[in-house]
Order: sequence, then C-alpha cells, then structure tokens
Amino acid sequence: MPRIAYLGPEGTFTEAALLKMSGGRMLPGGPGADAVTPVPCDSTTGALAAVRDGDADYACVPIENSIEGSVLPTLDGLAGGTPLQIFAELTLDVSFTIAVRDGTAADDVTTVAAFPVAAAQVRHWLAEQLPSAQVIPANSNAAAAADVAEGRADAGVSTALATKRYGLAALASDIVDEPNARTRFVLVGVPAPPPGRTGADRTSVVLRLDNVPGALVSALTELAVRDIDLTRIESRPTRTGLGTYIFFLDCVGHIDDDAVAEALKALHRRCSDMRFLGSWPTGAAAGAAPPGLDEASSWLERLREGLR
Amino acid sequence: MPRIAYLGPEGTFTEAALLKMSGGRMLPGGPGADAVTPVPCDSTTGALAAVRDGDADYACVPIENSIEGSVLPTLDGLAGGTPLQIFAELTLDVSFTIAVRDGTAADDVTTVAAFPVAAAQVRHWLAEQLPSAQVIPANSNAAAAADVAEGRADAGVSTALATKRYGLAALASDIVDEPNARTRFVLVGVPAPPPGRTGADRTSVVLRLDNVPGALVSALTELAVRDIDLTRIESRPTRTGLGTYIFFLDCVGHIDDDAVAEALKALHRRCSDMRFLGSWPTGAAAGAAPPGLDEASSWLERLREGLR
Amino acid sequence: MPRIAYLGPEGTFTEAALLKMSGGRMLPGGPGADAVTPVPCDSTTGALAAVRDGDADYACVPIENSIEGSVLPTLDGLAGGTPLQIFAELTLDVSFTIAVRDGTAADDVTTVAAFPVAAAQVRHWLAEQLPSAQVIPANSNAAAAADVAEGRADAGVSTALATKRYGLAALASDIVDEPNARTRFVLVGVPAPPPGRTGADRTSVVLRLDNVPGALVSALTELAVRDIDLTRIESRPTRTGLGTYIFFLDCVGHIDDDAVAEALKALHRRCSDMRFLGSWPTGAAAGAAPPGLDEASSWLERLREGLR
Amino acid sequence: MPRIAYLGPEGTFTEAALLKMSGGRMLPGGPGADAVTPVPCDSTTGALAAVRDGDADYACVPIENSIEGSVLPTLDGLAGGTPLQIFAELTLDVSFTIAVRDGTAADDVTTVAAFPVAAAQVRHWLAEQLPSAQVIPANSNAAAAADVAEGRADAGVSTALATKRYGLAALASDIVDEPNARTRFVLVGVPAPPPGRTGADRTSVVLRLDNVPGALVSALTELAVRDIDLTRIESRPTRTGLGTYIFFLDCVGHIDDDAVAEALKALHRRCSDMRFLGSWPTGAAAGAAPPGLDEASSWLERLREGLR
Repeated sequence: MPRIAYLGPEGTFTEAALLKMSGGRMLPGGPGADAVTPVPCDSTTGALAAVRDGDADYACVPIENSIEGSVLPTLDGLAGGTPLQIFAELTLDVSFTIAVRDGTAADDVTTVAAFPVAAAQVRHWLAEQLPSAQVIPANSNAAAAADVAEGRADAGVSTALATKRYGLAALASDIVDEPNARTRFVLVGVPAPPPGRTGADRTSVVLRLDNVPGALVSALTELAVRDIDLTRIESRPTRTGLGTYIFFLDCVGHIDDDAVAEALKALHRRCSDMRFLGSWPTGAAAGAAPPGLDEASSWLERLREGLR
Repeated sequence: MPRIAYLGPEGTFTEAALLKMSGGRMLPGGPGADAVTPVPCDSTTGALAAVRDGDADYACVPIENSIEGSVLPTLDGLAGGTPLQIFAELTLDVSFTIAVRDGTAADDVTTVAAFPVAAAQVRHWLAEQLPSAQVIPANSNAAAAADVAEGRADAGVSTALATKRYGLAALASDIVDEPNARTRFVLVGVPAPPPGRTGADRTSVVLRLDNVPGALVSALTELAVRDIDLTRIESRPTRTGLGTYIFFLDCVGHIDDDAVAEALKALHRRCSDMRFLGSWPTGAAAGAAPPGLDEASSWLERLREGLR
Repeated sequence: MPRIAYLGPEGTFTEAALLKMSGGRMLPGGPGADAVTPVPCDSTTGALAAVRDGDADYACVPIENSIEGSVLPTLDGLAGGTPLQIFAELTLDVSFTIAVRDGTAADDVTTVAAFPVAAAQVRHWLAEQLPSAQVIPANSNAAAAADVAEGRADAGVSTALATKRYGLAALASDIVDEPNARTRFVLVGVPAPPPGRTGADRTSVVLRLDNVPGALVSALTELAVRDIDLTRIESRPTRTGLGTYIFFLDCVGHIDDDAVAEALKALHRRCSDMRFLGSWPTGAAAGAAPPGLDEASSWLERLREGLR
Repeated sequence: MPRIAYLGPEGTFTEAALLKMSGGRMLPGGPGADAVTPVPCDSTTGALAAVRDGDADYACVPIENSIEGSVLPTLDGLAGGTPLQIFAELTLDVSFTIAVRDGTAADDVTTVAAFPVAAAQVRHWLAEQLPSAQVIPANSNAAAAADVAEGRADAGVSTALATKRYGLAALASDIVDEPNARTRFVLVGVPAPPPGRTGADRTSVVLRLDNVPGALVSALTELAVRDIDLTRIESRPTRTGLGTYIFFLDCVGHIDDDAVAEALKALHRRCSDMRFLGSWPTGAAAGAAPPGLDEASSWLERLREGLR
C-alpha cells in the first residue's frame, strides 16, 4: 500500500489532488484510492524530503498555478538534492470555500484566516464582500479552516474538503477572483522506469547551462529543429549569485518518442549539467505531438542494406 | 523634489536601496538623497500603483533575489496595466539583523516575528540559534521590528536600518543562510526618454508570444544572431489558462546600441504583443556588450555611395 | 555614348541581350539602344577585363542558364580582381537557329559547327535530325555562323541574329532540347551608387567564409532570421586547394531595404571577406520581398522619445 | 573481374585515377589492379550510363577540381536517372605533359591540341612558352596525344600516361598554371550496402528543397545543430526554370555514425525529395569528425531503466 506524502493537514487542495489521482488509478502500479496511505507533511519541501528519506513512496505536490505561476519550492526541490522523478500529473480547477462556524453571517466577520497564496487569489472578492475584515495569515488552506474551528478567526479562505472535515459551514463557495484558475499537481518518486508512452505525454528536464551568450538558444534549438513543442520554460537562480540560472523545460512527448530521445541525448551532450525529471502521461494532448520517425528510420535502414 | 514610492514602513531593505540610489545620484535628473521624498506603501504592487496614479514620481521595487528568484508582484506589475519604465537599478547584499528590545538575550526569545521571505533566508540560523522559538509572520522586515518594539514578539528578523529606527538592539547582525544573497532593485517611472547609453547598460522587454512550436526559439534567435547577451529569461503565466506564458527578457546593451535597436525592432515585428521596460545603466558590465556596428554602417554607406 | 563590352563577334546571344537592355533603357543614366557603342570581346572574361581596363564602360555577360547552371567565367571574374558591380539584368529565352548557306538541305549536311555549350543544348535535336553529321567546335554561336559562311562547315548551331548578319538561311529555327531554357544576363560596371530601389530588386554578394563547421549556416541565418528570401547560392573553389569555397548569394531586395541593409552589415561583420556585387531592379518579383521595417522603426523612435 | 567505365580513350587522367584506385585496392570487394577490366567511354555521362545499363560494374568519374570546381556532368548524372551510389574516392594532383613527336622542338610548334578544360589550366604556360601556336580543341587529354601521333597537331596538352601510350616525347612535364590543382575522382556503382565506417568518411546527398524562404537554412541547420561538418555545398538548376535548384551536400562522417544517421533521417523528413549518394572512406580526415553519441545513448538507456 503506497504511502503518498502531501502538504497537509487533511483538507488541502493537494490532498484533493492526491485522492483524485489515486481514485483515477494514475499511480504507477495502478492502486486505487482505497489502496494508498496519505502522509501529511507541513510543506511541499517536506513532502519531497519524505520521499528522499524513505518515509513515503511518492509525494503529490503542486508544480504550477495558472495565476501565480510556478510553485517555487517544488521546482527547487526537484532541481537539487538526490534525483527524483515525476510519474503522473493532474490539474484541478482552483476555487475556495469561505468557511465559517455555523451561524456566522457576513456581517459578523471581522477576521479572515488565509494562506497567503489563497488570499492573493480572492483579494477582490474579500474587498467587495468582507471589506472591513482583517486578513490573518494561515499556514495552509486547511489550517485556515482549523483557525476558524478553533476560534482564532471568524472566517477562513479554505477548501470544500477542509470545510467539511472541520465541521464548518460555507459562507460562500466556488470563490476565485480570476476565472481559469487551475493548479497542476505532479506525483514524484525515486527514479524508476517511466510509465509507458501513451501518445499524450510530457517530458521534463532541468538544464544548468554554461554562462555564454547563445547557450540557451542553442539548447532550445535542439528541440525546435526536431519539431518538439516546448510547452514551458522556467528559470530559477542557481543560488551562486545574480545572473546565473537553471532552466526547467517541459515538452510534449515521451522518452520513447524517437525525436524526444534524440533531443535528450543532444541536450545531455551540450549541457554541463542536465537532470531528467521524467516522462509521464498527460491524459489529453498538451501541445503538438513530436513527429514520428518510423518512416525515416525504415528509409535509413533500406539505405544501409543498399536498397532504394 | 521627486516623490519615490517604496515598500514601507521605514526601515525596509527597499528604503535602504532607495536611499542609496538617490545618494548615489542615480535618479534621472540627478537629485541627491536630500532631495527626494520617500513615499512608503504597503506593498510592491501598491508602490507601482502610486506611480500610475500620480501619487509618486518613481517607485523603488525589488525585482530579483539571488536565492528566491524573481519578485513576482514586481514582474506582474510591470507586465500589465498602463506602461511603466525602468530607469535605474541597484543591487544590495542581503543580510538580516535580529532585533530585540534592549536587554533581551537569546534564551529569552520564544517568538520571532519575520516577513516570510526573510524567514526563508535565515531558516538554518534560526534552527541553530533559536531552536525553540516560534516564528510569527510579519508584513515586512520593518514590521518585524515594529512587532518587537510594540511587544508582539520577542525578536524580529529585520534590517539594520529598522533596528535603529525602532530603537532596538541587535541580538545578531549580518545574518543570512546562504552566502551571495543579493537583491536587485529597480527604479520605475512613467515612460520617458531612457537615460543615455553608458556602455554598461541593460535592456528589458516583455514578450507575449503566439502559442506555436518554435516561437520562443525564434524570438531568442533574434538576440543570439546579433551576438546580444541574454542575461535573464523569466516566464510568467498569462492568467488565461495553464500553458500560455509571457516572457521577461533582459539583455546587455542599450536601445541606442545599433544591435539592440535592430533586435528590438525584430522582436516587435515578430511578437503579437511586446512591451519595452527600458534601457538603463548597470554601473558595471552585466555580461558581453553588444557588438558595435559603426564600422559595418560606414562600410554600407560607402557601398551606397559607390565606393569600395 | 557608353561603350559596352560583350562576348562577340556580332550575333551572339549576348549581343542580343545587350541590344534589348539598351533598347529597354535599362542602362544607368538611361541611354537607349541608339546611344551605346557595343565592344565585341573574345570571351566573357575579356569583356570584364575591358571594363577593368577602362576600354569599356560596362560589360554585358551571361551569369546563369536554366539548364547549364552558373556561367563560371562570369562568377570567377566577379569574385576576384578589382571590384565590379552589377547594375541591371535581363533574361532571354534561349533557342537556336540552324544556319546554312542558301540552298543547303538537311541531307547535304555532313559537318555542323557549334559552340560546345550550344551543342549540349541541341544534342537530341541533332541526333534526330542530322544523325550522320559530325560536330565541329566553334568559338561562339556567332562564330558557328561564320564557319558556315566561310565554308568550314555545312551547318552551324547559331542565333537568329547571327544567321541574318552573315547572310545565311535558317534550316530550322527555335531549336532547343529542353523547354524552359533561359539565360540571365547582367550588366557590369565599376562600382557606383546602385540604381534606386524599385520594390522588385535583387542583391548579390560573394562571401569567403572561415573554414569552420557551421560558418555557412550562420551566414545564411543572417538572411533567414530577417525573412530575406535567398534565391540562389553557388559555391566556387577558392583555388587554394580542394575543400575551401567562396559562396555567391543572391537575395530578393535592395541595399536600401532596411532588412537587407541589416543583413549586409551582419554578413560584413561575420565574414573575413565579403564582396558586394550590387543591388539592381529585376523588373518582376523574383521571390518574397523583404519585410518593411518602417513601422518597427517608428515604434522604436517613439520608445526613444519616451512615448508608448 | 569487375568492369570499370571511365572517360577514355586510354591515357586520360581518369584512367590514371582508376588504375590507382584499383591498385590501392579501394574497390568494394577488394580486387587489385590486375583484376579489373577498364571500359573506356566517350564521356563522363557515358560512363555513368554504362553502369546503369549493366555494361559496367562501376564508373570512375571526376567530381571536383580545385580550380574549375564541380564537374557538372557528373553531378547531373548522379542527381537524375535511376539511383547510383559512390563507394570510393581518390584525389590526384593535376599536371600536364606537352606531348610532341620525337624531334619536335618548341620553335617547331604551330598548333597545339588541347581538351578545353586542360587548355584553361595551362593558358599562361602556353602564352609564355608557345606564344605563336594556335590551340585546336581535342575531345580529351588522351585525344590530344592521338592528334599529335596522327599528325593533326604539332603538340598536345596531354597526360604522362597518354604520352607514353602513344609513343610520344615530352616537350615539357608537370605543367600547370596554378599550384594546388587537384582533381577528386569517385567510384560509382548501383546501390549496395555502403563500405564500412572507418572514422574518416564522407557522406553525400542531393536535396530538392521546397522553394520557400528559409528552406535551405533549415536543412543546413539539421547538420549544424548536430555538429556535423558540411564540407561542400553545390547548387544546380532543376532544369525546370531559373530560380529553382537542387543542392549537393557533402559532410564528414558515415551513415553508421549516429549523428549522421540522425541528420539523414531529419533531412529525409524535411525534404520533398532527397537522394543518398553514399558513405565511403576518404583515407585522411576531410574535416571535423561527427560527435560520438555512445555516451549519450548509454545515459538515455539508463534513464529508461530508471537508473541515474
């Protein structure tokens, strides 16, 4: 029964993603929701550490939000330390529940507990609906509900799951300032053979490039020349000074796609340091699929045999 | 007397950057430290809004930290809304002062107020030196000192400036987990002619690229082919869904460098949407200077005149 | 009255091109057919030498044939020696007249004089129509007619113009093995300001590239990145050993097109040796016109003025 | 006993190359000089036709001269018709023997027979040493000797081999205007498995590119991005009109070099029409060898197995 670390306590979006992933049988090996052991951790960084330390088999962590961008602790946790690998992903619509103790009306609310990331995503709603309430920082969306349950705040910006877990009522539901707010979660484990190619896959790497003009464009050209669709690039400081970076690249395709395999080899050859973060299914197409090289390979084989 | 908005209250790193900028006479028009009016704001976003609203002439805001990476509210504030422009930059070493009320010893400390970004940068120090103290979120590095002065916390992760302003003592100074921690600040105003070319300049743009394979590499090639040194690339979500991004590019050189001017025109032509964030002096060289085209321009002129 | 050198004697295709050029008033300065002095030379190389030596103002020389490819003496004559420049071009359909003395029938022909280039272009016709005739080399298409007029051959593969000049009859007209046979002629003079931009122009250069991997693709990228249509590339040995080459590049556009001017400067900067062969009108479009940069230049100028 | 077609008659440079190739045991299957049957043909085109028609097993043909450039009939004969393949190459220094009948002195020479290509390469020598002699065209270098032997000319620009074969004397030897004159010959047969990779190999292809801006640079980028050294590019008209070309590309490496195989597949995928002309040993290195991908392939295999 695989143990899966996540940002707890119970009731966070991450737990919701975890439950949906396992219920959807996206886990390597295929266990269902009833066959996993959630391991709550106090941070995303802690969830990754649990995998590295052997305290969990996988970690379910957010990697990207359509409003806030990359989740930096996840990127930094994947880029450094002993190698980890991504095996699955899931995207959730993000919307919040305003949790209150039963009987609390909007006019009664003078303090609102909120995880800062969440507070940023409902700022306009709060300004309109609870203009006089003071925002108090909470440690997670679930903790915001706990703060309400335990009387430290009148309302909490939380999740439907946590509202229910803590026996609270919903002052408002499906709250979010921006439409299209979505968070992508990934399932991370220790390196293992990637899940099989499905035809709708994503491959991700981290590059540490030599600090010379043109190094990045040379690396990206390795993808572009092979018609591989780069779907995301994110830079992060190397922590050794301003002006040096590592790059996270996501592309459409699988290590078992010939074009992707060629590109990975080329990047490996070109980069002083490169880390493979995995190839895994995305369910739906996330961009233009890499070209198939079967016909070209057959053609080449015929040349080698002296045929035309 | 130019009014300069910044993340207040008094005593933040940003105020220190602002004072150093004006003291170094880096302001357009050249006023010195004694000739500016600092305008404290409650957030970086608010400081940019003050410029847009005419409540300040400039905003001094952090844009990048060597450990944490980009300062996202600054990037988002520059990418959207009415156009702003960067006129100067300054990089500060980042280190913290642990502020206490006079007479407080390490053993007395049970609570430590800290701005979360600062807390992250002194995590190891706190774990070693104040292992049993609880960390309480503060709204800024200066607010952490205020929390101490007003008795809400025993110690605060703050700045030397704020420690002094609030009449506090330093339990420890120059504290930071990572060596090389530096923050780059920029001075932002409404669009105006850029400061003159100095030979050590930076130019910055924001691109919104069509979502087609190869769009990014095509854009970067416009820089690479002209031997322009791309010193930074940062992607941010467009907020219209996962998988679409805008890109912040910094390069070495000035809009009045011929090669940079060519590249800007090419990017403008190629991109559905592109925003110029400015050309400004960096003081020291931040990479490989763009090639001079004077000789090539003279050569071309001779061709046009029929000379060889 | 400009003197124009050409491959003589009278009656060659080159003279026909020259007359059509001057009649079409394509000459710089605009003289018509009645205002030029043709200067017959014994070779293309000799015609270019006449310009260099001051014995002619221009040379009209073939540069490319749709069947045979480049005219190598013309390319070599333009690449080396003191600089020359191209000012105009004209393309002629190529077809031959089989010239005989009045009264000669096909059955009477046992010898056929032919310039080797011409013989190659009517090989099939000769094999079918005059299968038993022996081919005798002539020094030009006009000389083939002279050989007939003077009794050294029974028939000659010649031009309509020469047939008429030498008072001969046409055994057959409009003869050519391959349809679409065309020859492009250029008007060459000493360097001078290029003819004005017409919107349908060609620009030509010669590059001597450093012998390093990627040098050629780097040079061509300077055109491609600027959406300049490369219409022709021809390599020629440097004559210093096998494996080193110079390259002739033709592109659509004029030195006064901004994009072409940028590309020329970039190539000049990148190449150890580069020779500009001219910008001149082609009459009709020869490919995709270079993009206009006026809008981008205005945009850049507004940035410099602080406008958006 | 393989039959090898060549430009005859006996005594041409091509026959000398053929004898040296077979003596050097460069033939596929390894027969020596004593085990081949030379088949003289009246042209390079005819030699290639003999292979296609089954009248010869191979053709030995010149493909490139360091002074004159490509040998166009060879290129055109390889680009069109049923596919042929190159299996070996040999480079010869080119120099001429001035053949005379025994007893003829320089002052006695009033006519000199010469193959036009040869005449062009000794023009300066003739002008200085035999200024009053008239040059008479011959059909090959060997035919020039035959013309002397049979009394049709006083002297002939010929080869050492032909001078000896026709029982003539050498008025002068090792004559050539340009130092470094060399000709490269190739051995052409019907398609068969290429000779094995030696580490010093050449691969050659013919591309017919779509007539769109950037098509050539895209194709060349497939080589450049893989650090494959393009040693030669030659364009030839498609014979369907001015302005459309096919391209002959030579690169360093063998179809069994991983990087070359990748590039061939990429070109095949990108080009509407591409012809493989072979991979064969060059003896000495002709440029920068393609990078080995063994380490990168092992790395990739480890990723697939879940190892790091």
